[in-house]
Amino acid sequence: MGGDGGPSVVVEGAVAAAGDGIDIVLYGRDLDGRGLDVVEAPEVIGMHEKPADAVRAKARSSLVAANRAVGDGAADAVVSAGNTGAMLVAGLVHVRRLPSVLRPAIAVVIPARLGASVLIDAGANADARPEHLHQFAHMGSVFAADVLGRPNPVVRLLSIGEEAEKGNQLTREAHELLAGDSGLNFDGNTEARQLLRFAADVVVCDGFTGNVALKLLEGTILEVLDALRAEAGATLRGKLGGLLIRRGARGLRTRLDPETHGGAYLLGLRGLSVIAHGNSSPKAIANAIRLAARGVEHGVVGRLARRLPDRVASARPAS
Amino acid sequence: MGGDGGPSVVVEGAVAAAGDGIDIVLYGRDLDGRGLDVVEAPEVIGMHEKPADAVRAKARSSLVAANRAVGDGAADAVVSAGNTGAMLVAGLVHVRRLPSVLRPAIAVVIPARLGASVLIDAGANADARPEHLHQFAHMGSVFAADVLGRPNPVVRLLSIGEEAEKGNQLTREAHELLAGDSGLNFDGNTEARQLLRFAADVVVCDGFTGNVALKLLEGTILEVLDALRAEAGATLRGKLGGLLIRRGARGLRTRLDPETHGGAYLLGLRGLSVIAHGNSSPKAIANAIRLAARGVEHGVVGRLARRLPDRVASARPAS
Repeated sequence: MGGDGGPSVVVEGAVAAAGDGIDIVLYGRDLDGRGLDVVEAPEVIGMHEKPADAVRAKARSSLVAANRAVGDGAADAVVSAGNTGAMLVAGLVHVRRLPSVLRPAIAVVIPARLGASVLIDAGANADARPEHLHQFAHMGSVFAADVLGRPNPVVRLLSIGEEAEKGNQLTREAHELLAGDSGLNFDGNTEARQLLRFAADVVVCDGFTGNVALKLLEGTILEVLDALRAEAGATLRGKLGGLLIRRGARGLRTRLDPETHGGAYLLGLRGLSVIAHGNSSPKAIANAIRLAARGVEHGVVGRLARRLPDRVASARPAS
Repeated sequence: MGGDGGPSVVVEGAVAAAGDGIDIVLYGRDLDGRGLDVVEAPEVIGMHEKPADAVRAKARSSLVAANRAVGDGAADAVVSAGNTGAMLVAGLVHVRRLPSVLRPAIAVVIPARLGASVLIDAGANADARPEHLHQFAHMGSVFAADVLGRPNPVVRLLSIGEEAEKGNQLTREAHELLAGDSGLNFDGNTEARQLLRFAADVVVCDGFTGNVALKLLEGTILEVLDALRAEAGATLRGKLGGLLIRRGARGLRTRLDPETHGGAYLLGLRGLSVIAHGNSSPKAIANAIRLAARGVEHGVVGRLARRLPDRVASARPAS
């Protein structure tokens, strides 16, 4: 029921993804499932409701019911374009954390020029402690290894200078934890300037910084492409030029479009949760569902569960 | 002596700016001043020296001497492409804070599509408290009013959601201070997605977030333009199109190029300090000097000194 476009957009995306052989169950109110299985969920959590209150008050909402299905083992993954905060709370309450995880984190794939890069945390923890960032580095490493196929993923910490002492108190303390952990392939700080070029297989930060970075990246890409179109369209010569480069520009737009990846993983739970953009198109929804399916096929949760405790035990005890 | 290109780049920029009638004194070691006044400064602070140590140990460096000239009233403004941290420390020690200022902040002009926008703090305070952000809002407002000519500048707080409660602890507390201050034209939170379009006359944040945002903005703009060029250049058709839109693309590049603005103000001191990019070209240096001259002509420091105490007194007492 979530997303700015309402349920019909989600259903259309689901129908497209089902064509790939993914087994989909829709949760919602009075849905036309267009042939897919539908579980009736009489309540709806709005995009701007307070997450904790909404999840508690609306146990029969589609968002809560779908998370519960993962928690109960009835589904392998949940995908939603709804209220992100409510997805976090419902994940914590109904899917539950993996035993060793302090805080789940949002991992998003950045379509960097020289290769895909995992940004973690992209918004789950607006306030984070150094030991959380340390775990994010491990979760991102498992993701990069298993889903992106990077055998020994390079991890860098997002800061405001490459030197260890550059940054705020959080990054300075996190830097120390990361540098002292032989279980990570830590390569020091990176600056945001590198993010769209390629900063590392895994870029670690707190959820406030990560969310600002992600939104700035998306907004800036669209703005530059729009501005260029406007500049080119101002003259006949420019218009003709614009027509000629349209195919190349479209390729670029597709690579950089957040819809191409469709969604972000919420990692650290006992099941897979994928959070799609609120303004997702049917294509973005379909890609978010495919992302969830890929995570299930690669057994991301199982690998996290098996590997994370060892990895974290080798480092400073987390509080 | 600062900047990645060495003193010759700085001298060349200074010569260009001097042509506009700006009275320039160069500080450095063994400089060929090409007709400009030169003050011999036998020491040099390197780009990667620790700021506090370097400023203390190298009292006869060009960076310290130029700051001291402003502190002594011998100059109206100091411009440097050198070590940013050392500029901060030398400003605090030798130019000194305005009486009411808790923390100087870096204000940079973002070339947003719908109009220039002031981002403050862009990197002076990696760790900041809510009362610091409150003062940044006032400093940014004075700057936007006097230098950008916005009579009643709209201020927004950079966060990860427009609602007051979205954000981290710092932004939630700062939001309360800003919203409760009738001396500010505060319009709530903004998201980073809007930054290059136009978020507000003044966008307030801590120096860590602001520095990440600024570098991400610069890196992403260059990366998108480069990627587009690469895509277009891959085919003959695209190459021809690229030639035809070159003029428009160049206009866009110029607007978005950090060199066009040249530098950032360090606000909150008793004199004007302009920090230019380390990798500044002569053109960027000239524009940084012009930015300093414009600030002097508009009496930015005097206005800050007169208006800031009143403004801050009308709000919650700052610790």
